Amino acid sequence: MITLLTDFGLRDHFVGVMKGVIASIAPRVPVVDITHEVTPFAIHEGAFLLAQSWRYFPKGTIHVAIVDPGVGSARRPLLLESRGHYFIGPDNGLFTPILANAHVKARVLDAPRYWLPEVSSTFHGRDIFAPTAAHLAAGVKPSRLGTRISDPLTSAGFEPRQLSEVVYDGLILHSDRFGNLITNFPAAEFPLVTSIEAGPHIVTHRARTYAEAPAGAPCLIAGSAGYLEISIAAGSAAAQLGLNTGAPLRLNLA
Amino acid sequence: MITLLTDFGLRDHFVGVMKGVIASIAPRVPVVDITHEVTPFAIHEGAFLLAQSWRYFPKGTIHVAIVDPGVGSARRPLLLESRGHYFIGPDNGLFTPILANAHVKARVLDAPRYWLPEVSSTFHGRDIFAPTAAHLAAGVKPSRLGTRISDPLTSAGFEPRQLSEVVYDGLILHSDRFGNLITNFPAAEFPLVTSIEAGPHIVTHRARTYAEAPAGAPCLIAGSAGYLEISIAAGSAAAQLGLNTGAPLRLNLA
Amino acid sequence: MITLLTDFGLRDHFVGVMKGVIASIAPRVPVVDITHEVTPFAIHEGAFLLAQSWRYFPKGTIHVAIVDPGVGSARRPLLLESRGHYFIGPDNGLFTPILANAHVKARVLDAPRYWLPEVSSTFHGRDIFAPTAAHLAAGVKPSRLGTRISDPLTSAGFEPRQLSEVVYDGLILHSDRFGNLITNFPAAEFPLVTSIEAGPHIVTHRARTYAEAPAGAPCLIAGSAGYLEISIAAGSAAAQLGLNTGAPLRLNLA
Repeated sequence: MITLLTDFGLRDHFVGVMKGVIASIAPRVPVVDITHEVTPFAIHEGAFLLAQSWRYFPKGTIHVAIVDPGVGSARRPLLLESRGHYFIGPDNGLFTPILANAHVKARVLDAPRYWLPEVSSTFHGRDIFAPTAAHLAAGVKPSRLGTRISDPLTSAGFEPRQLSEVVYDGLILHSDRFGNLITNFPAAEFPLVTSIEAGPHIVTHRARTYAEAPAGAPCLIAGSAGYLEISIAAGSAAAQLGLNTGAPLRLNLA
Repeated sequence: MITLLTDFGLRDHFVGVMKGVIASIAPRVPVVDITHEVTPFAIHEGAFLLAQSWRYFPKGTIHVAIVDPGVGSARRPLLLESRGHYFIGPDNGLFTPILANAHVKARVLDAPRYWLPEVSSTFHGRDIFAPTAAHLAAGVKPSRLGTRISDPLTSAGFEPRQLSEVVYDGLILHSDRFGNLITNFPAAEFPLVTSIEAGPHIVTHRARTYAEAPAGAPCLIAGSAGYLEISIAAGSAAAQLGLNTGAPLRLNLA
Repeated sequence: MITLLTDFGLRDHFVGVMKGVIASIAPRVPVVDITHEVTPFAIHEGAFLLAQSWRYFPKGTIHVAIVDPGVGSARRPLLLESRGHYFIGPDNGLFTPILANAHVKARVLDAPRYWLPEVSSTFHGRDIFAPTAAHLAAGVKPSRLGTRISDPLTSAGFEPRQLSEVVYDGLILHSDRFGNLITNFPAAEFPLVTSIEAGPHIVTHRARTYAEAPAGAPCLIAGSAGYLEISIAAGSAAAQLGLNTGAPLRLNLA
């Protein structure tokens, strides 16, 4: 099974063409879309969405993830193995959460015989990553697809920063379809929060479910991603608070 | 075969994760998306889109439908059987058109052994509905997934209301991608319409096809959904008339 | 394998229903989406996206392409065979790039026994094209699906027009998700361009990759579609230059 996670969107031929390339090499391999609506060039958002998804798939799944502003430059194409899953995409920090696992094998893709015959400088999804994934799914060994490396890129994590015993700085990792603002504060590590400040807003209400939250007021919820979320019942916290991915937060324990 | 119809959108990991959960339990079962772009929380729109879709799939298909503002509250998770199809989702009126069929068997899902080990309070699509659908597809009997109930929720139907011999009140069920406004007047029951009033607009033209309609003028067409539609040839009736889902209509036969 | 390329969008039941119809006739045939976000009624854009996609799929693939403002009118439903691929959709110019191949066999679909029993006047994707594709995938011979014709429609191509030895007129074929403006100047035929004028803008920079382009300035890139593209590194040329599909261009060689 191959999954695809990109910032390619669905209005062009990009994703369909990748599926055609895969089907031409490995016709019986199912291909599943995670999302193609990562904000263009937003590597950290792509990393967050990949981190949320991969573990729900069966072992042996090949995850192709592409958010790749440096396509065609010297940035390396990667193949990672971790916990029985494979990851293919650009070496630009997108795989930071995967590289945090113990025992990751990293390879640079350097065997053009497993790529399309002509490689464009702008669409490696079609020309390098999709055919590599298909050959891997069809049984080609990782060692034939690339050479081991020890220095894949990780980007500065999005962990909260502790300012004092009771104050932490953090940020919004992702704003979802419903306008829920997913913070980088792990819910399990912050069970007792007094407030989160987001720009001029101070959120103090806690709720266990969206339905339980008081109508119209922003609440803190332990979301399904494992992080505290700022949510508004049957409304969009992102729109009502005017906040989005990357916005800074301050958490107070007292 | 499993179908998915949700208001989750495609920009997050939600739909991909549900497919991962299904693949982990029932690897060979095809999953087909109906749509994930139901207006957030719009239960009636979801019900309309499900009613338009399910009968085109083969018998035995499992339809997972989720528009679920009450996720995490006391609303029950359901499994329905009707006409050889299965339906899984929240008990909040979303299945009203299915429940109008004769001989519907309803069950409340109450067997956590067929769910994910941890159930969040905000993402039952991943934690309850997807694994239940996958186990059902893999051969688990409905009777092991839930207990029979006799009172699944139906919400006030969207049938037209007769005001006099020649006047009916109705509304717009759905505004589609092309801006066609789908009314709740079944075309077969209203073959002879004089006009439909929509706010300040009075639509009197009839056309058989979009191509036949006079350019720029709103027309009544017997649409592919079985209802009268207000359409504008090569234009958006929704945008031009400023109308949307839920807007009230008045139909005149004379 | 069946591919789908339409202007139906993903917010309605249209695409899901077509997949249900296909699954009911040919349950084991994989269906792949190219895109459903062709600009409504934009036949030339659909033709461009189809031309970019079909050759990446394996021989024997059936491509259903529907951008069909004339649905329900006298426009004919088509089946084409070319280079081992099949193409199904309306006879309105959408298949112009396919018809430019040598040795195309064209048929008009005129065997209603392979359609749904009831044919609406507005949704031939569901009623004619999807069931025809499914029967073809299931082994029905093309000759049983339709009668040979010799005059399928082609629309005026989008080839550049030569004005003098060094000046060509052209236009923007497509604006992609990233705001790259894909011109109709084949990169291989125009290796030495001095400038492209687009409205008040004159683009003179050349770049090999998006990463190589100077920040903020529009550049000419030989894009992955085989055409010159006007691009802005990590930005949207479409938004910054205020240009879109169909806009006229002038190319200067000196």
